[in-house]
Amino acid sequence: MIKADQSALHVKDGCATPAQPFRSSTHERKFSSAACIEGILRGDRSMLARVITLIESSRAADRQIADEILEACLPASGNSIRVGVTGVPGAGKSSLIEALGKYLISERREKVAVLAIDPSSQLSGGSILGDKTRMTFLASSDMAFIRPSPSRGVHGGVAQNTRDAILLCEAAGYRNLFVETVGVGQSEAAVSYMVDFLMLVALAGAGDELQGIKRGLMEMAEVVVVNKTDGDNIKPAEKARAEAANALHLLPASPSGWTPRAMCCSAHDGRGVSDLWSCILEHDAITRSTGWFERTRREQARRAMHDDIELGLLQMFRSHPAVQVRMIELEQKVLAGSMNPASAVRELLALFASK
Amino acid sequence: MIKADQSALHVKDGCATPAQPFRSSTHERKFSSAACIEGILRGDRSMLARVITLIESSRAADRQIADEILEACLPASGNSIRVGVTGVPGAGKSSLIEALGKYLISERREKVAVLAIDPSSQLSGGSILGDKTRMTFLASSDMAFIRPSPSRGVHGGVAQNTRDAILLCEAAGYRNLFVETVGVGQSEAAVSYMVDFLMLVALAGAGDELQGIKRGLMEMAEVVVVNKTDGDNIKPAEKARAEAANALHLLPASPSGWTPRAMCCSAHDGRGVSDLWSCILEHDAITRSTGWFERTRREQARRAMHDDIELGLLQMFRSHPAVQVRMIELEQKVLAGSMNPASAVRELLALFASK
Repeated sequence: MIKADQSALHVKDGCATPAQPFRSSTHERKFSSAACIEGILRGDRSMLARVITLIESSRAADRQIADEILEACLPASGNSIRVGVTGVPGAGKSSLIEALGKYLISERREKVAVLAIDPSSQLSGGSILGDKTRMTFLASSDMAFIRPSPSRGVHGGVAQNTRDAILLCEAAGYRNLFVETVGVGQSEAAVSYMVDFLMLVALAGAGDELQGIKRGLMEMAEVVVVNKTDGDNIKPAEKARAEAANALHLLPASPSGWTPRAMCCSAHDGRGVSDLWSCILEHDAITRSTGWFERTRREQARRAMHDDIELGLLQMFRSHPAVQVRMIELEQKVLAGSMNPASAVRELLALFASK
Repeated sequence: MIKADQSALHVKDGCATPAQPFRSSTHERKFSSAACIEGILRGDRSMLARVITLIESSRAADRQIADEILEACLPASGNSIRVGVTGVPGAGKSSLIEALGKYLISERREKVAVLAIDPSSQLSGGSILGDKTRMTFLASSDMAFIRPSPSRGVHGGVAQNTRDAILLCEAAGYRNLFVETVGVGQSEAAVSYMVDFLMLVALAGAGDELQGIKRGLMEMAEVVVVNKTDGDNIKPAEKARAEAANALHLLPASPSGWTPRAMCCSAHDGRGVSDLWSCILEHDAITRSTGWFERTRREQARRAMHDDIELGLLQMFRSHPAVQVRMIELEQKVLAGSMNPASAVRELLALFASK
């Protein structure tokens, strides 16, 4: 059973009913947002979960309160290490986060937050981080906060909600943040733009080769972790690690000054887990000393702003009634080769502008 | 001296004066666009150059005529091989295109068109394909059409103009199209979305290693060409080719069914040039037989449409007077960390919607 999760789900259900705690009356709103801000800054996990639910809400009144809370929490945010964790399903991302989290809580007495981006969640209602059996330690620890993938993308996308959730976790005193994503489609790119350190979790394949590396992923990663380096799998994993190191070596140098590494790890018996965290700390120290860390975060904030503007403009465009109708007709023409894309676009934009 | 270029420049200058050939009177317009269409379909190079200038024009009247011409040329377009050529400055992209073009014209009696995308052109007025000394054969052949990078991006982006230019070249009977881009920033991605085959031109480095491979580029390429495999450079180039082949081997398989290759080539003495073209023809035959070719082109057209919609929406947004003023203030706040990107975005979008 997951405490954080439960409270989040409770409030999410609550939000759909008139009895939900965020009302539109000015008095109640002010009271609510003040209580939320105070609760988050105090590190209250259930309040954190409630506010994350609020930022995912599609109601305009909720959104307004959420903005007030986010603004108030902003000064207390940012002081953290944001670690992205990606890899194909079955690579053991959740188990590895559990092992790292356990190490941080047991050995270093540091709080840990785990968030997820699930690119399929806008359709399916979320699929990853559903299996909490791999995070039993974190799920039962009061020093951990686990938050499954946002289940809606009505206002802003999943990425925007996750960025806001990161901010809130930081304001609640979480210094170690893991953002997990399943290695399909564009979600790794989205994660790489909101973290300081991207970890690619891979496995040794049947013939010692590296498994689970998608196109374009290797070069985004600060470290490639060959997971499940335990038992009979140690030798193949070490060979796969050498292959990964070779592939990383062929990549051009990163402008951050960091040389990506390949490491072996076992979430099962803990092998390499503390080394992996040391690697993350080393990256943190290097990039902070060169100014790369701060520069990247500022650039990420600017990028987030421009990405969200694009997303918002597209939402306005797609919800324009006349555009909706004509779009279908013109897209068919373009696909059939009977209309030039540029002409279709000009007609649709003129329609949108004339609203 | 470049014939095609000269006529293009002539008309470009002409366009800025009242004496330019495309007037806004209905009679003249109809006459003009009909003459343009006829000229292009006849393969008239100077008409082709004039119409490409027209599509780059920022005048609304020009744009309207350009659309008429594009629509009329559309049925005659598409029957071609579109080859993207990218690589860092100095890799010898222009010389390689010259060598391939010379082979196609001299040995195969086929017409060749060369276009360019220059990501810097919107600011600088275009920088690549300026040095025509490397394309002296093509520049003087009446079977070649060379078009430098569009120098403006007022209406639509450079990518949109290049896509329209591709369409016009095809309608003018050019079956072999080269789209050159300098290997900086996002231009390779833009090119990869408008060609059938992407060629990455690289060099052997000082220590036999491969030079000029940017992050994320290798996996877009259908072939990596180690250029300048001549004289003292043959051995290092062959070693670099083996290294590139190894790196390509480590990449996951492409869904097209094509296995990317690494080849040696010398634009200087012609080594490997006909093999390189055979490789392109082989890719063409394979992808056409599997339906991948047609599917990719349709998907590219759809993507072009959606990319251009985004671009157009952003242009509308950025040219909104109230948004322009507030954007500067809010971006400063976001960069300073005193405002959440999501809140800034919501404010700006509300401003835009209220116009």
